[in-house]
Amino acid sequence: MPQRKELIIGLFGFGVVGEGLYRALEKAPNLNARIKKICIKHKDKPRNAPASLFTTDKEEILNDEAINVIVEVITDADAAFEIASRSLVSGKQVVSASKKMIAENLSALIGLQQQSGSSFLYESSACASIPIIRNLEEYYNNDFLHGLSGIVNGSTNFILSRIFEDQLPFDKALVLAQELGFAESDPSLDVEAWDATHKLVIILVHAFGLLLKPEDILFQGIQNISLTDALYAKQNHYVIKLIAHAQRLSDGKIAGFVLPGLMKSDHQFSFVHNEYNGVIIESGLADQQFFYGKGAGSLPTASAVLSDISALAFDYKYEYKKLFQPQRPVLADDFYLKCFISFPPQLDIPMADFEHVSTIHQDENRNYITAILSHQYLANNDWWRKNNCSLLLLPEPVIEPKDLIKPKRKYEQFQLASIQL
Amino acid sequence: MPQRKELIIGLFGFGVVGEGLYRALEKAPNLNARIKKICIKHKDKPRNAPASLFTTDKEEILNDEAINVIVEVITDADAAFEIASRSLVSGKQVVSASKKMIAENLSALIGLQQQSGSSFLYESSACASIPIIRNLEEYYNNDFLHGLSGIVNGSTNFILSRIFEDQLPFDKALVLAQELGFAESDPSLDVEAWDATHKLVIILVHAFGLLLKPEDILFQGIQNISLTDALYAKQNHYVIKLIAHAQRLSDGKIAGFVLPGLMKSDHQFSFVHNEYNGVIIESGLADQQFFYGKGAGSLPTASAVLSDISALAFDYKYEYKKLFQPQRPVLADDFYLKCFISFPPQLDIPMADFEHVSTIHQDENRNYITAILSHQYLANNDWWRKNNCSLLLLPEPVIEPKDLIKPKRKYEQFQLASIQL
Repeated sequence: MPQRKELIIGLFGFGVVGEGLYRALEKAPNLNARIKKICIKHKDKPRNAPASLFTTDKEEILNDEAINVIVEVITDADAAFEIASRSLVSGKQVVSASKKMIAENLSALIGLQQQSGSSFLYESSACASIPIIRNLEEYYNNDFLHGLSGIVNGSTNFILSRIFEDQLPFDKALVLAQELGFAESDPSLDVEAWDATHKLVIILVHAFGLLLKPEDILFQGIQNISLTDALYAKQNHYVIKLIAHAQRLSDGKIAGFVLPGLMKSDHQFSFVHNEYNGVIIESGLADQQFFYGKGAGSLPTASAVLSDISALAFDYKYEYKKLFQPQRPVLADDFYLKCFISFPPQLDIPMADFEHVSTIHQDENRNYITAILSHQYLANNDWWRKNNCSLLLLPEPVIEPKDLIKPKRKYEQFQLASIQL
Repeated sequence: MPQRKELIIGLFGFGVVGEGLYRALEKAPNLNARIKKICIKHKDKPRNAPASLFTTDKEEILNDEAINVIVEVITDADAAFEIASRSLVSGKQVVSASKKMIAENLSALIGLQQQSGSSFLYESSACASIPIIRNLEEYYNNDFLHGLSGIVNGSTNFILSRIFEDQLPFDKALVLAQELGFAESDPSLDVEAWDATHKLVIILVHAFGLLLKPEDILFQGIQNISLTDALYAKQNHYVIKLIAHAQRLSDGKIAGFVLPGLMKSDHQFSFVHNEYNGVIIESGLADQQFFYGKGAGSLPTASAVLSDISALAFDYKYEYKKLFQPQRPVLADDFYLKCFISFPPQLDIPMADFEHVSTIHQDENRNYITAILSHQYLANNDWWRKNNCSLLLLPEPVIEPKDLIKPKRKYEQFQLASIQL
């Protein structure tokens, strides 16, 4: 019969997640866990908890030998890394919700776990309430995981829902997301897809044993999406979602990127509204599996933190099995993406560099094309991120080199006005 | 760095799942697992595997000390229990897909695991490819699991899809399900909801630590669903699904049942088509989470079996944490269900026994009512299962005693013809 260890927690951060966790622990007597001390930054803010719990001195927690679990839910990534790494070295178990810190320091953090034997859990960092890391780590650990794709940022999904469902302008939708606690304190982390990319970095190590830096990944946020894009989506029965995608190609390499994409209106992702997240896992045996749940907000994040705390009571650790397997995959560069690109009429875009152009639409307000571009080209050029351009992936965007059929007609033959080949 | 143990497998059964597993293992070199011997019933059937692998003598596997893992995917529940229990006692790890056997012998099988220290895994027995047991066991192990409800039988869901989407008659839909390998060899196990009930028994022990026998649970299959029911569903924008439901009531007891139900057409379950399964987990913190994947068929089942085999390489065991917690919940009897019941016009149904009747519809072909009945009453009376009656739950069917408002008007006041109160 398994026994729960008593957990004495030192908590860093008492914002929406920290306070949510504090309230949740009060209602979880079976967990055998209590918060001994809470480290905060601003001493004078009013707090809904006994004053004796709080300190502004991190050493008071880090040096307290009675505290065996550190829970870290602060926004400052550098401070979070110091707390996590010092705690691991001193033999404390750590639960963290700091996506940015984890993604930027994953290699060091795995090393510290190996070295110290301490456990470092961070389920809430990938899709808040959805147990995606745990499932990738424990369940999809065979040879049949083909890929996964997900709506992993609740804030941008909330903003896109407000824009497309309620016709709110972008800035109003963003303010609403912030008011409801779904957006990061620095909204560019969400809107420019840094946050989704951090999550993809974390997911990739547990899905495929692929250890990357955020900068290794091609990504773009939702900041450039235009009215033309929205109209095109509507006319073609698409919705626009920010998608993190990873896929094993036939040469064994992993294609991975974070880009906004057009999804058919009967696709599972088109049912993922507001702050919800959804992840589709593609397996050779089980076909598609879909996980859906709240991806942002105080309690959903606290829920994942709490499940990690509960797992610590039974000495659970990530084993990074796929990272330590003999043959690890590498990131693919040699593949192609089906894209929709809209741009101002006066802009001359370098269509000669594209693999294939299948539609050109021109009008006095805005032009768009549908085309195939290489991943390498998108990674090495940035005109499509600037100049009032917007790039969206088309459905089933990834084309492997073996499947790329070179077009007979070149782009130069296109005339003005809308042409569909 | 974790090491995979070498797994030498003795396989019982080479039907669709057994052969699926054999093929999958051939493609899983990283698993460090191989099948040494396969025990089959019919010696002379042609098999797509080397003859030297097969035996009809179970002792050849059970007494082979080199074999450390038994995988059992046969349909005979008694034989399966003998294989599983003898293997556990002799220190072999066991993976089983025999839902009926597990549900009927769960208490004994948990005892054998405790006694022997051997691991007994059965993820495929709940929702085939969806990792629901593992998530309930490992992830939702805190105080905040409010309930879950699921489409857990792929075969009946496939049949209902064919009836409602393709207007196939019931018997043709059933034959099609059997031809595609989605139905049990004895279709009454699926159609009469035995299979879904076995799965609910298995789910309940991992969700809430509630250890039941299948007979303890109120259940009814899809065999009585009538054309009137289908028309009522269509007119009211409902779909009909067979639902396994478990819910923690405010007194801490667990309401659990398996009944066909009317679901609103925007409910997640209405997007679960064909042989797919879907499970909604309700948590106090994370709100609703939805898991979706293939719930029947050779490879999806083999996929879950394979994940269990892979977990054995790292000595994974179910710990039944919730079963061994100090205060275990019990099955609730004192609650009410919102029901739609259709029946032949000549039948006199005992409306005086109902808590409340809100709609009566009468016509020359078939009558129906919508009403509130107590769970206890449904469990203790069976007129609604017979006499060409059909009972479907209405959305959000469970009413707790504290929420039951006794009606002012009694059923006797109803007149002929359709009345909507």
